[in-house]
Amino acid sequence: MRILFHFIFLIFLALTLSSCNQGKSTDVLLSWNEAQSKQAIIEFVDTVTDKTSKQYIPPAERIAVFDNDGTLWSEQPLYFQLAFALDRIKTLAPQHPEWKDTQPFKAALEGDLNTIIADGHHALLELVMASHAGNTTEEFTQIVKDWLKTARHPKTGRLYTEMIYQPMLELLHYLRDNRFKIYIVSGGGIEFMRPWTEAVYGIPPEQVIGSSIVTKFEMRDGTPTLVRLPEINFINDKEGKPVAINQYIGRQPVAAFGNSDGDLQMLQWTCKGHNVRNNERFCLYIHHTDAEREWAYDRASHIGRFDKGLDEAAAEGWTVVDMKQDWKTVFPEK
Amino acid sequence: MRILFHFIFLIFLALTLSSCNQGKSTDVLLSWNEAQSKQAIIEFVDTVTDKTSKQYIPPAERIAVFDNDGTLWSEQPLYFQLAFALDRIKTLAPQHPEWKDTQPFKAALEGDLNTIIADGHHALLELVMASHAGNTTEEFTQIVKDWLKTARHPKTGRLYTEMIYQPMLELLHYLRDNRFKIYIVSGGGIEFMRPWTEAVYGIPPEQVIGSSIVTKFEMRDGTPTLVRLPEINFINDKEGKPVAINQYIGRQPVAAFGNSDGDLQMLQWTCKGHNVRNNERFCLYIHHTDAEREWAYDRASHIGRFDKGLDEAAAEGWTVVDMKQDWKTVFPEK
Repeated sequence: MRILFHFIFLIFLALTLSSCNQGKSTDVLLSWNEAQSKQAIIEFVDTVTDKTSKQYIPPAERIAVFDNDGTLWSEQPLYFQLAFALDRIKTLAPQHPEWKDTQPFKAALEGDLNTIIADGHHALLELVMASHAGNTTEEFTQIVKDWLKTARHPKTGRLYTEMIYQPMLELLHYLRDNRFKIYIVSGGGIEFMRPWTEAVYGIPPEQVIGSSIVTKFEMRDGTPTLVRLPEINFINDKEGKPVAINQYIGRQPVAAFGNSDGDLQMLQWTCKGHNVRNNERFCLYIHHTDAEREWAYDRASHIGRFDKGLDEAAAEGWTVVDMKQDWKTVFPEK
Repeated sequence: MRILFHFIFLIFLALTLSSCNQGKSTDVLLSWNEAQSKQAIIEFVDTVTDKTSKQYIPPAERIAVFDNDGTLWSEQPLYFQLAFALDRIKTLAPQHPEWKDTQPFKAALEGDLNTIIADGHHALLELVMASHAGNTTEEFTQIVKDWLKTARHPKTGRLYTEMIYQPMLELLHYLRDNRFKIYIVSGGGIEFMRPWTEAVYGIPPEQVIGSSIVTKFEMRDGTPTLVRLPEINFINDKEGKPVAINQYIGRQPVAAFGNSDGDLQMLQWTCKGHNVRNNERFCLYIHHTDAEREWAYDRASHIGRFDKGLDEAAAEGWTVVDMKQDWKTVFPEK
């Protein structure tokens, strides 16, 4: 009887403990150095998840939004989706003779990256979007998956999905453990990201927001199909990000993470919006300062320009990650 | 000691039982009569949640989409949002002298409902959308909340949020208990629904998809603001529903619930789409057959026309709820 009693007591104890393991932990964000940025993240999470705090935020409202290019994975020397687009454009060129005389397609076919990049974000998106059309959503998903299996980054030789940031993976994990709901809010194409974000980041398709081209419903041989048209539907950059956050989520985020001026309005919407006065909010910018392990760029870069955002982060007291100083590692071990 | 032992044993038993109460239950959908529709719902849920079944669907993929008007709440004698719009238009008319000579605004101000309804769904949406603009998202949310607190249905005298269907509330509850993620996919305005769907249906704002007007990001006195413009952004009806499902969710639903021809493409996309062959899918139409407790209408109705959908449901073997026969009650007890 005494043994049985002990046995049951131990099970009871185990059950009790397993439901109480949500206390604060310092054993998190292991690839982050003990710098101000790591402290700020932990302090924010501890505060808003503490039921006794005035800044407590219930789980349903713990919406965190992340940019993707330059925030969750690299974006140099050009957006990875643009590398995909250039490959696609070469494949599709025989069917589009007009591309030979139209920018930015002409530059794409000639491998003239400088012209493409100098044309700016809108031109980049146009190139990306147009090169992605002419198929069904099913077909496009498969094309993206196939490309990611074999395409490699010209500098590192890694698969593109291996050029994600290890410290940010840990941050996503840490926030999820604290019952945050994480959305990607990226200038990148929504249907370019969704085929892999769940496997790579643990972010399901319904939590991925991005730029899009127009799709059209059609019955094809009795099967309903969505056909992708060469027409931009929405550009999810700058002022577009708060618009999309409102449209897709319908709540103001409580935390926002970006790396460029394209994310500024998203951070403003999160940290300076209505109803923010009495609640804790968290805004973080990643500053690419590591030319050795990754790239160093900010105010003068065509891709991921970080100029107005850098000034506003200083003025507002937002957290700025110095990639070189704050991160122990950049990419996951292979 | 013996008492302590019993006490601990009882706690242990309680904990064990409470974690095991997810078996199949027949004690669900209590406002549904034991008709074919109830059986079909339970059979579908039992099948796709049974890990030993070939039709098993993991929780992450259990996406269920519901129309709102006529599916979750009533829509007669005119869409409730239209009642809201007519009230708003009267309030705003002094600031919009041009409405006196432009349809459908002219009819709205004259209370000429027949003209408005006969103008069709697009005109209705135009009226609704335009009357909702000229404020910020914050302000609009408050206007909707205030209206719902006091406005009452002309026939029943109920608050509009009391004209939801009790059997459908139970269905939402049952699906949630079985780890379905429920989205509203409605022709109604997205920002008209989001202020109340969580309290009324338990569906959070990020799982509400609807028609929308254009919003624009603006800094006003240092505060980021979204201003609602009198311009239609997207009409989430008919062919628009699969487009929006793909755009917002990025997964094909496994179950779809509607009541009119406006839902037909959503049901097709769910039950006849790609990848459906080897998986179980569920499509259900509600047929408004109860002139006494609610309304009876189908093929000839301007609002909630159910004609092509009725034929396709028969041809495809989709479940059709005969509201009069299948539901014990219609509205919740007050």
